[in-house]
Amino acid sequence: MRIRIKPAEDFGIGGAVARETRGRMLGRDGRFNVRRSGLGFFESWSAYHWLLNIGWPTFLSLLATAFVSVNVLFGALYLACGPGALIRPADDPMTSPFWQAFFFSVETLGTIGYGHVSPRGLPANALVAAESFVSLVGFALVAGIAFARFARPVAKIRFSDVALIAPYQGITAFMFRIANIRSNELLEVRPRVSLSRRRMNGGSTEREFHELALERDNVVFFPLSWTIVHPIDEASPLNGVTAEQLKASDAEFMIYLTALDETFSQIVHARASYRADEVVFGARFRNIIDREDETGMVRVDVRRIGAFDMTPD
Amino acid sequence: MRIRIKPAEDFGIGGAVARETRGRMLGRDGRFNVRRSGLGFFESWSAYHWLLNIGWPTFLSLLATAFVSVNVLFGALYLACGPGALIRPADDPMTSPFWQAFFFSVETLGTIGYGHVSPRGLPANALVAAESFVSLVGFALVAGIAFARFARPVAKIRFSDVALIAPYQGITAFMFRIANIRSNELLEVRPRVSLSRRRMNGGSTEREFHELALERDNVVFFPLSWTIVHPIDEASPLNGVTAEQLKASDAEFMIYLTALDETFSQIVHARASYRADEVVFGARFRNIIDREDETGMVRVDVRRIGAFDMTPD
Amino acid sequence: MRIRIKPAEDFGIGGAVARETRGRMLGRDGRFNVRRSGLGFFESWSAYHWLLNIGWPTFLSLLATAFVSVNVLFGALYLACGPGALIRPADDPMTSPFWQAFFFSVETLGTIGYGHVSPRGLPANALVAAESFVSLVGFALVAGIAFARFARPVAKIRFSDVALIAPYQGITAFMFRIANIRSNELLEVRPRVSLSRRRMNGGSTEREFHELALERDNVVFFPLSWTIVHPIDEASPLNGVTAEQLKASDAEFMIYLTALDETFSQIVHARASYRADEVVFGARFRNIIDREDETGMVRVDVRRIGAFDMTPD
Amino acid sequence: MRIRIKPAEDFGIGGAVARETRGRMLGRDGRFNVRRSGLGFFESWSAYHWLLNIGWPTFLSLLATAFVSVNVLFGALYLACGPGALIRPADDPMTSPFWQAFFFSVETLGTIGYGHVSPRGLPANALVAAESFVSLVGFALVAGIAFARFARPVAKIRFSDVALIAPYQGITAFMFRIANIRSNELLEVRPRVSLSRRRMNGGSTEREFHELALERDNVVFFPLSWTIVHPIDEASPLNGVTAEQLKASDAEFMIYLTALDETFSQIVHARASYRADEVVFGARFRNIIDREDETGMVRVDVRRIGAFDMTPD
Repeated sequence: MRIRIKPAEDFGIGGAVARETRGRMLGRDGRFNVRRSGLGFFESWSAYHWLLNIGWPTFLSLLATAFVSVNVLFGALYLACGPGALIRPADDPMTSPFWQAFFFSVETLGTIGYGHVSPRGLPANALVAAESFVSLVGFALVAGIAFARFARPVAKIRFSDVALIAPYQGITAFMFRIANIRSNELLEVRPRVSLSRRRMNGGSTEREFHELALERDNVVFFPLSWTIVHPIDEASPLNGVTAEQLKASDAEFMIYLTALDETFSQIVHARASYRADEVVFGARFRNIIDREDETGMVRVDVRRIGAFDMTPD
Repeated sequence: MRIRIKPAEDFGIGGAVARETRGRMLGRDGRFNVRRSGLGFFESWSAYHWLLNIGWPTFLSLLATAFVSVNVLFGALYLACGPGALIRPADDPMTSPFWQAFFFSVETLGTIGYGHVSPRGLPANALVAAESFVSLVGFALVAGIAFARFARPVAKIRFSDVALIAPYQGITAFMFRIANIRSNELLEVRPRVSLSRRRMNGGSTEREFHELALERDNVVFFPLSWTIVHPIDEASPLNGVTAEQLKASDAEFMIYLTALDETFSQIVHARASYRADEVVFGARFRNIIDREDETGMVRVDVRRIGAFDMTPD
Repeated sequence: MRIRIKPAEDFGIGGAVARETRGRMLGRDGRFNVRRSGLGFFESWSAYHWLLNIGWPTFLSLLATAFVSVNVLFGALYLACGPGALIRPADDPMTSPFWQAFFFSVETLGTIGYGHVSPRGLPANALVAAESFVSLVGFALVAGIAFARFARPVAKIRFSDVALIAPYQGITAFMFRIANIRSNELLEVRPRVSLSRRRMNGGSTEREFHELALERDNVVFFPLSWTIVHPIDEASPLNGVTAEQLKASDAEFMIYLTALDETFSQIVHARASYRADEVVFGARFRNIIDREDETGMVRVDVRRIGAFDMTPD
Repeated sequence: MRIRIKPAEDFGIGGAVARETRGRMLGRDGRFNVRRSGLGFFESWSAYHWLLNIGWPTFLSLLATAFVSVNVLFGALYLACGPGALIRPADDPMTSPFWQAFFFSVETLGTIGYGHVSPRGLPANALVAAESFVSLVGFALVAGIAFARFARPVAKIRFSDVALIAPYQGITAFMFRIANIRSNELLEVRPRVSLSRRRMNGGSTEREFHELALERDNVVFFPLSWTIVHPIDEASPLNGVTAEQLKASDAEFMIYLTALDETFSQIVHARASYRADEVVFGARFRNIIDREDETGMVRVDVRRIGAFDMTPD
């Protein structure tokens, strides 16, 4: 016998969390309000993962720091080989032995090797060999990480600032709007929307989860904006709910969305969440798609993704 | 309760677009006739995405321009260090100080470092260190992007120039033909065909969408050509439609197709569209598969993918 | 209405091929006996695809040829700059101007730049700049392709030399055996088996296709060998077929198999085919799994993947 | 007719293994207790696969060894060119001809080329060309492998040390707990649990397999820990089983788990196994999720993933 999984439970945050958390589970940006403890530094902290996720300025600063550090280190080591280890032009205006050694290291690490300075004796030559190895391997690693940073597909979906609950085809519906703000196309976009709220259960409160049925649960093409709609029919857990009840139950709508990135042919995803106070009752999204202009193009104004009008009673 | 999604609505262009557009939605080449506005330059414009999509000549020209520019910049900086910053051979016929500095920069950026010219003093050496860093990091980025350009799987499906509506197994059918024009094999090819057309609704016109049921909706192997067929039975939205009605309703057939690229083991996709005036009534595709020759091979002539004959009444 | 696709037609070689081919469609190694004509050289021939698929010796020979060619080219160009363009040691025993220029090019392309030879004058220096650019870009491309060659996941499934039709659980079954001969694990292995055979249809012959139902159509783990079994029950197109009938109908069993490669976390696939004369009636595969030895290991002898015994009548 | 595949058989270790093995099939770490024999060295041993799977210290040592070896080789070759092949400073304190040649090779392989030593004559120059080619190609390969090592997504799921069989919602259930110990998020986690045990069948014993139905067979988000539960209802093969029976039947619970790695957007997987003596009867997992602290965060203590308490009778 296959045990039926009730849709309401299918979203996947474990029961234990459900009972104990009261704050927001997903931040507006989709990050989890969760901390994992009890792990050693190297177990949980994946250097590579971190190097992938830092911004480009941080990444480049890091590389520059590493570049200078390695040259300081090897510069010091060349210096330690004694005064005759590096042959230099006699009239060199740069008389500091450290700077001499440092810039010799630069020429070696960068595989330039002008030769106006050159190593002399076994220790200096052995250091050159070591630095050459560091240069080759280090550069291979940097190139690998630089590429991986590029190749990582990231969806940049903009979600409307608020979700709406508004009249919709005779009933009401919960809806929010999304747009792709990258220039690459997204295909086969599939959202899943889950409602989490507190419920009185005897004396204690429990957190319950419902997956919300969507009017349309995928689109093949996503060139413009898309208003994702959960019709509040009799089967909906939102049936008859008021704004006050939604807030009182500490409700949170969690969204998980996958898509196929056309440029990279990889599956990308986005997450977001709306709390009860980010849901507006009795409003409609304003049209953000302009009529075709002389070129026959359709235009969508992504800035106004969250624009809405209150509906007259 | 799970809300049933009618196949006709499942294709995924939002209703708002549907109502307002009149021109072609997908170009013949599968690009969207859509513009996203209201985004900052850096939000929507992904430099990496652009670098991936430009042609190789443009890409290489860009690299060459960057190479020259960086050398001009560093050449100017070496020049600014003053006349004694670069030691040069006394009998150098190239007397222009700028060219001397420019080519010294080339030797440094390219990590060649012949050494007939070499830096002298702290400023020149510091510049060398900076240029060496630029060289290492810049090269890593270029290698990364070059690889990403290679690794991006792209399906090159050729679609017949026109689609046909022709007698088919007792009824009629809408059909078009595709072939893979790359040498890599495509597997598990899955097309989806959607019809979009205008419809009078009271006084105003609306655009309606129908997903068309296909005789066969996937093939595992795709070594030759494939004629994709939508039989026009009683359930088809094309049932009884004439060429004039098709044109009057501003009909557009949109095609979305995924496949597994054998070489890269990645999912690739193609898009295309036929407008009403690209549909020929009463025609059959001509056979483009030759009988096996002496080697036992089957041969398909991809040039004639769109070749058709009018059927006699 | 959704048109039902009969399993027998679902394998995906188009009808036109079916009617016209008589030889083998898939070679024993899974390649198609198919040629695409009518394409321009650059349309069908993907240089990158080719560079990915050639063997390593060919690939390295190609690189070596390119390396020498570029150096011959630039050597000739340096030579064309005239006798004073390269400053050389006076006592150089290598008096051939071409070799002098060639090896200077090597030092430049390889970014070594010892400096015992150095460029003199604008033309030679400009050539150095050009060669440096060629070196940087060329190397980035080579590194990219080398990586792509590595990263391309390839399943290496060994198929038994013959397929068997033998008694099986009261009825008979069509079966063949596979093993993974790479050291990386394959997961979620899913084979699809299709039968193609000729059938008399009035005066002409047609080729018909049947997808064969498998006793088990996927395995999660695939550490050993797997005998894939199609039970020949009443619903099987092989029901009651004899070896002679199989040969007379020019039957071919085509196999398509996907799996998840553990090392690369990518979907890989393999193809193979058995013709009627590669099917043995009345035989069983010999056991190739040894009892666990002292270490508790199970051992599978992949060499004997095709070993079988005739069953006594 | 489609042959129904009984869930119990769906896990995918072939019957032959089942009958013959008695030890553990999957190690605690998910590796197979299986050896493939009969393959040539190069057939089964994928150098690339091996280079991907060794640890970083081993990988770097290997590179260092290769670096030294190539330099020893080319050093010896330069030496073989005779005493005049390398021009050196007259006052070089390093008088060993081998070390002179070795370090010249280092400067060449590393593309440094200071030039205080330089090649003289055709043989030495030809060697330089060869070493330059080795340098370029070798480095491209190393960069490719280094990147591939980085890019390979690996899930690091920690499994509880033991599985429990304990009262659960009126009946009992088999359960174990998992946590993600990497800093990257895992999405759409899907476990499959299979029971393997020996059964008397007439005089001989057979090994039978059952896939265990799970209370919830996937979670979309996996920020914390997850207790995977198989309820032991009447349909469960564990119905009524005692600890003694479990051990006597040599039972093993095999777990296979896939997830989508957020950072790499690739499917990753993990495997594990519990033997009968790693299953504790009558125990509950201890809560490892702390109440939200002042920051509103939920905290999970991954160290205590396996912590449990015996339940009072």
